[in-house]
Amino acid sequence: MRAEDLKAVRRFVRDELGADETRLDELTEKPLEVYEKFRETGLANWWLPEELGGRGLTLEDSVEIVNELSYGDAGVAFTLFISILGTTMVQLYGSDELKQRYLAPMAAGGTFCASLGSERTAGSELGKIETVVAKDGGDLVLNGEKFFSTNTDFADFLVVIARSADDPEDYPAVVVPRGTPGVEIVKRWDVIGLRASHTYQVSLKNVRVPAGNQLAGSGLRLLEIGLNASRILIATTALGIARRIRDHCMNYAKTKPFRDGTLLESPVFAQRLGQMEMQIDVMKSHLLRSARDFDKIMADPDAPALFNRQGTVKSALTAKMFCGQAGWDVASVGSEMFGGLGYTHEMPIGKLMRDIRYVSIVEGGDDVLRELVFGRYVVPVPRRT
Amino acid sequence: MRAEDLKAVRRFVRDELGADETRLDELTEKPLEVYEKFRETGLANWWLPEELGGRGLTLEDSVEIVNELSYGDAGVAFTLFISILGTTMVQLYGSDELKQRYLAPMAAGGTFCASLGSERTAGSELGKIETVVAKDGGDLVLNGEKFFSTNTDFADFLVVIARSADDPEDYPAVVVPRGTPGVEIVKRWDVIGLRASHTYQVSLKNVRVPAGNQLAGSGLRLLEIGLNASRILIATTALGIARRIRDHCMNYAKTKPFRDGTLLESPVFAQRLGQMEMQIDVMKSHLLRSARDFDKIMADPDAPALFNRQGTVKSALTAKMFCGQAGWDVASVGSEMFGGLGYTHEMPIGKLMRDIRYVSIVEGGDDVLRELVFGRYVVPVPRRT
Amino acid sequence: MRAEDLKAVRRFVRDELGADETRLDELTEKPLEVYEKFRETGLANWWLPEELGGRGLTLEDSVEIVNELSYGDAGVAFTLFISILGTTMVQLYGSDELKQRYLAPMAAGGTFCASLGSERTAGSELGKIETVVAKDGGDLVLNGEKFFSTNTDFADFLVVIARSADDPEDYPAVVVPRGTPGVEIVKRWDVIGLRASHTYQVSLKNVRVPAGNQLAGSGLRLLEIGLNASRILIATTALGIARRIRDHCMNYAKTKPFRDGTLLESPVFAQRLGQMEMQIDVMKSHLLRSARDFDKIMADPDAPALFNRQGTVKSALTAKMFCGQAGWDVASVGSEMFGGLGYTHEMPIGKLMRDIRYVSIVEGGDDVLRELVFGRYVVPVPRRT
Amino acid sequence: MRAEDLKAVRRFVRDELGADETRLDELTEKPLEVYEKFRETGLANWWLPEELGGRGLTLEDSVEIVNELSYGDAGVAFTLFISILGTTMVQLYGSDELKQRYLAPMAAGGTFCASLGSERTAGSELGKIETVVAKDGGDLVLNGEKFFSTNTDFADFLVVIARSADDPEDYPAVVVPRGTPGVEIVKRWDVIGLRASHTYQVSLKNVRVPAGNQLAGSGLRLLEIGLNASRILIATTALGIARRIRDHCMNYAKTKPFRDGTLLESPVFAQRLGQMEMQIDVMKSHLLRSARDFDKIMADPDAPALFNRQGTVKSALTAKMFCGQAGWDVASVGSEMFGGLGYTHEMPIGKLMRDIRYVSIVEGGDDVLRELVFGRYVVPVPRRT
Repeated sequence: MRAEDLKAVRRFVRDELGADETRLDELTEKPLEVYEKFRETGLANWWLPEELGGRGLTLEDSVEIVNELSYGDAGVAFTLFISILGTTMVQLYGSDELKQRYLAPMAAGGTFCASLGSERTAGSELGKIETVVAKDGGDLVLNGEKFFSTNTDFADFLVVIARSADDPEDYPAVVVPRGTPGVEIVKRWDVIGLRASHTYQVSLKNVRVPAGNQLAGSGLRLLEIGLNASRILIATTALGIARRIRDHCMNYAKTKPFRDGTLLESPVFAQRLGQMEMQIDVMKSHLLRSARDFDKIMADPDAPALFNRQGTVKSALTAKMFCGQAGWDVASVGSEMFGGLGYTHEMPIGKLMRDIRYVSIVEGGDDVLRELVFGRYVVPVPRRT
Repeated sequence: MRAEDLKAVRRFVRDELGADETRLDELTEKPLEVYEKFRETGLANWWLPEELGGRGLTLEDSVEIVNELSYGDAGVAFTLFISILGTTMVQLYGSDELKQRYLAPMAAGGTFCASLGSERTAGSELGKIETVVAKDGGDLVLNGEKFFSTNTDFADFLVVIARSADDPEDYPAVVVPRGTPGVEIVKRWDVIGLRASHTYQVSLKNVRVPAGNQLAGSGLRLLEIGLNASRILIATTALGIARRIRDHCMNYAKTKPFRDGTLLESPVFAQRLGQMEMQIDVMKSHLLRSARDFDKIMADPDAPALFNRQGTVKSALTAKMFCGQAGWDVASVGSEMFGGLGYTHEMPIGKLMRDIRYVSIVEGGDDVLRELVFGRYVVPVPRRT
Repeated sequence: MRAEDLKAVRRFVRDELGADETRLDELTEKPLEVYEKFRETGLANWWLPEELGGRGLTLEDSVEIVNELSYGDAGVAFTLFISILGTTMVQLYGSDELKQRYLAPMAAGGTFCASLGSERTAGSELGKIETVVAKDGGDLVLNGEKFFSTNTDFADFLVVIARSADDPEDYPAVVVPRGTPGVEIVKRWDVIGLRASHTYQVSLKNVRVPAGNQLAGSGLRLLEIGLNASRILIATTALGIARRIRDHCMNYAKTKPFRDGTLLESPVFAQRLGQMEMQIDVMKSHLLRSARDFDKIMADPDAPALFNRQGTVKSALTAKMFCGQAGWDVASVGSEMFGGLGYTHEMPIGKLMRDIRYVSIVEGGDDVLRELVFGRYVVPVPRRT
Repeated sequence: MRAEDLKAVRRFVRDELGADETRLDELTEKPLEVYEKFRETGLANWWLPEELGGRGLTLEDSVEIVNELSYGDAGVAFTLFISILGTTMVQLYGSDELKQRYLAPMAAGGTFCASLGSERTAGSELGKIETVVAKDGGDLVLNGEKFFSTNTDFADFLVVIARSADDPEDYPAVVVPRGTPGVEIVKRWDVIGLRASHTYQVSLKNVRVPAGNQLAGSGLRLLEIGLNASRILIATTALGIARRIRDHCMNYAKTKPFRDGTLLESPVFAQRLGQMEMQIDVMKSHLLRSARDFDKIMADPDAPALFNRQGTVKSALTAKMFCGQAGWDVASVGSEMFGGLGYTHEMPIGKLMRDIRYVSIVEGGDDVLRELVFGRYVVPVPRRT
């Protein structure tokens, strides 16, 4: 990544997000103009490969970028990076034609894609998916309802995980252009935080696409693989928000009267901030290492096969767990630092607390991730750290 | 307390609060009609003494009542009990005339009072109060600005803590009728939780009252004494909210599919709920004991002198600390129990989390209370538990 | 309880336990002479009923006594109170003859009894017990091996829970005099804390007692009932140890140089001690309430039937969970308060940390207790707090 | 580092430490023969530079080595790496002659050195040091008493931090051969864990060395610089012990009966172990990054000046804080995993718990480190993470 890229991100954060936090805490009806502004930096979808016209930045670079973006607003950051879940699946397991047709325009236009996995009764247990995909001549026809899906309404295309009509043990992943008849938004979710982002419930009624839109391999496995990237970046938003909370505390303390001076001179305050900084420092170390773990596989010519063998990457799981937990701790402590003012909307801590909460909730709660870590990385002796 | 009283409270909670939680999460402009409904139970200001026409219930009874009310909505509960801070000061340190003039109507009409202590630069350090009270003939004249004050706009009267114009080491407490010229609402605070309650910034400009409206003793000490009651009841709201969170978890688990059954059969879920119930059970034990500690002094004919010697009651401090901490723990765990749905407004957990947060913030953050406990109840060897 | 009783306990603690802590941290071969000294206070087995010649103190009194004893040494306290597990079973479910034969001498002589429940493969799952009791004429014959049993070697009698040879679903509880042929100590456990206490592995080989030595009812249920008393007193030792840790911290801080004064003036130290005191205060509230819950049933003429219906008392479970957790927290914080000295045997904190650890381990770990609380007191709606 | 080096360490751990843990938990009178065995691997003092005849391994390599060693026994590990504190000071700030005279033999012979900083009344506040160094002709004469010093009795030389007799604001660091007259062991500390290590109280009476034995710069700063290396390696022992605890849990679970199978199938157990593994994984990421931070400065030709400017390295502070805290959490959870057996010396968990405790205590408790992080790395805005 060029140094000027990170500078451009910081400038975007300062100019476009810093100005008016309240607005980003409202549920706006359409993607905000801020995304247009981000596109102008030339960094939209920064991770797409150069051969498809993208910037080809690594996940390690992405951690740096998302760290800055989420310092500004985690909802905006989430909107800007969550397409990586879908593009990773297409990039690794789509035909060349699919990549040219769907990824190249995203690189050129800075547009969005969405991934549709979970259903009302299939959250952490994706094997219970009931959306069905049936073959009909050279086409695939999808029917079902998807519960949580971000960016869908304004995405170029959706990656849908469904159950095969022919084989209930088979879960194809299918690329569906957003405009395909039968794709309908049921509603937008009224989320408690991350309110600049857009997450939808979506129904699929006789949605027809060519058979070539199917990705290679099991959709459940592909989703696991794509989640490696998105989980690390979700975890990164905890870092950005935690840094923001720390800075708010420090700014507040500078002028808050305490005894004969300011809060900055309070030894108890110093303890709280010293602990926060430690947590922030450790988050960053682990996020960068997790990203390098991912990048190492991604850079291998055999990446699709390697990822198929590995599935979920250990450090992606532990990064989301750790940053969600440490971030929540920072927010909990932070929310007690501003006295009564911190309980009002005059301070941003309430929003930051609601925002950071999602890290431990989306794409697998901690109970689910702990079970995965145990089964995949503790039971097999050689995979233990 | 008669058994039917608690039943009436439960009926009120079910009928008036249960129906529409969303509405109670909005900042309404005037006290909701729900307070009118509560008045109809005959329990409004239940703690006022019988000789003034009140119900004369103890603080131990109050814990039971507030536990039920805050199970319904903590903002409504707070509005209904927080007058106890002011009435306790008047009851213990006001002249008979003041009691008849101000407390008797509150008992009869179920109306409200407010206490005005904190200022922008005098939060946990009340000695920094800058509101001044000056003698002018047989009158007292107050000038200043108070930062956080609940119920003020619709209160019958305010108890204002000010600094004496004559002696900067003296802090009189003065009863000011709400309608006195010069009492002005600067703004209502846009709080992040407890949104059915009403907290204001208030300015006092040449507010004139008779000298007889001053309470006996130091206002700082009187405030400490009044806070014993309100802190225990604030702590109690954590109990009510925690019970509500537990019940939401159980209701959700009953129908949430998990493996071949429901979440209710998950051993990990059982662990989380077993721990929550333990915390709830301990909160209740400690709250009831704290209330009995207060009631014991209050029932003594020498209560004003006893309270003056004691100031802040130990168990009132430890109750607010413990319930705030345990309650936040319950809410943190609870907020991870509903999957993605818990991150939307379709589930009440987001509101309950915001509501419960206030317990560790208002009327003294934990850092302040820990320092008080240390200085008053650990350093003096015989006062240790 | 007479005030002089508690004074006698405090005197015993000061004179017999205070002198030489190191000695109490050694595994001595036979019960220390300190038990003889305690007998001289007239308080040995203080809970035995007056009609059997005992002092008839309540469990609430017992909490006060054990609080003091464990302030001195938790191992001595444990040795002195753990007989309550066995005597409670005999008192509630033994014939009058058994009570006269076994409990009256304990009241008169201040001697000990033991309870033999757990086995190597039946720890938290007592249904897996393999010790067998068979009828042989008018006798019962026991065979098996018991894993953890405190006081056995010097007990008057043992209460053994076994599986019936006739009905594998039946688990009789049988009173066995210590001297009965076939009762053999396999070994004394080399415990990591509580080293003044004596816990044994015991084998039973053709141990023969009269059929009248069987208690009425299911041994598994009886054990649950007896554990109510012992769990509350085990929890109480966490209170005593935590108070001791607090006092050690305060004594150390008084002379430890810090900046221009002593550690006592450090605001960060004040925070730690303020938090400790809060935890200690809450422990005490909950322990006393738990004890009253137990006493209330115990005082009912129908106690045996009431306990049979109730089994494990909720607050006994939550008391052990809470005090174990809060106590461990106090010890963890405490162990960081003495600098490098705290890592040596010159300070008692290492011993106190090892001692307090047992609270969360013996008589049911927290995972087991949480499951019990969930199944018994959360799932049935009316039993929730 | 060559792959065979790490293998040699693992072999040493398995053959020399694995056999008999109990022995390593005793305070032996002289350095155990195990250190002789380690010397035979050719890795003793592995970090000493190649130009002095050492192996020249980096601190990143050291983290790998200490991780393995402390998996075996943290006391042995501590003894083997703690010389790095003294050698780092000599390597960076000693004359070439000092390096040849003192470091080259350590590289050749695998011997030890010691650092003498803290005093009875100067623990975390080293500015209060009272040991005095006076010039006497071409000699330096030291007088004073040092509180905690590891390896001193069998060290080749000691690095003593003293106060200048001429300038009370000046704190020279002086190299003192162990055999110098006047260096006397006051006592060996009876530590609660890490019992295979040897820490002493030492008195210095008219200890005379040549003036050339003084290192360049302020001893307080030099100590800070040396502590960067030792704190990271102390933190690393938490990783090794935590991995050991995890493996003990897994081995126990494999055969521990649970319901119809073993504990390995318990979902609650899986949660605990999944969380542990996450903590272990994060520790490792952060330790390796901290070591690279150190190595980067150390590899610079200007290292002495760079370190003088930087003093304490941020990630060295945060590594010790984080690993101490996470490690204690792992040990606390681990100590509840073995039922009653875990409370006896038949399981190693008691020893491991005592061992790991030192991480948060020696070379700066967390309160001290938090204050350092705050003052050095949060207050100056550009140094925040």
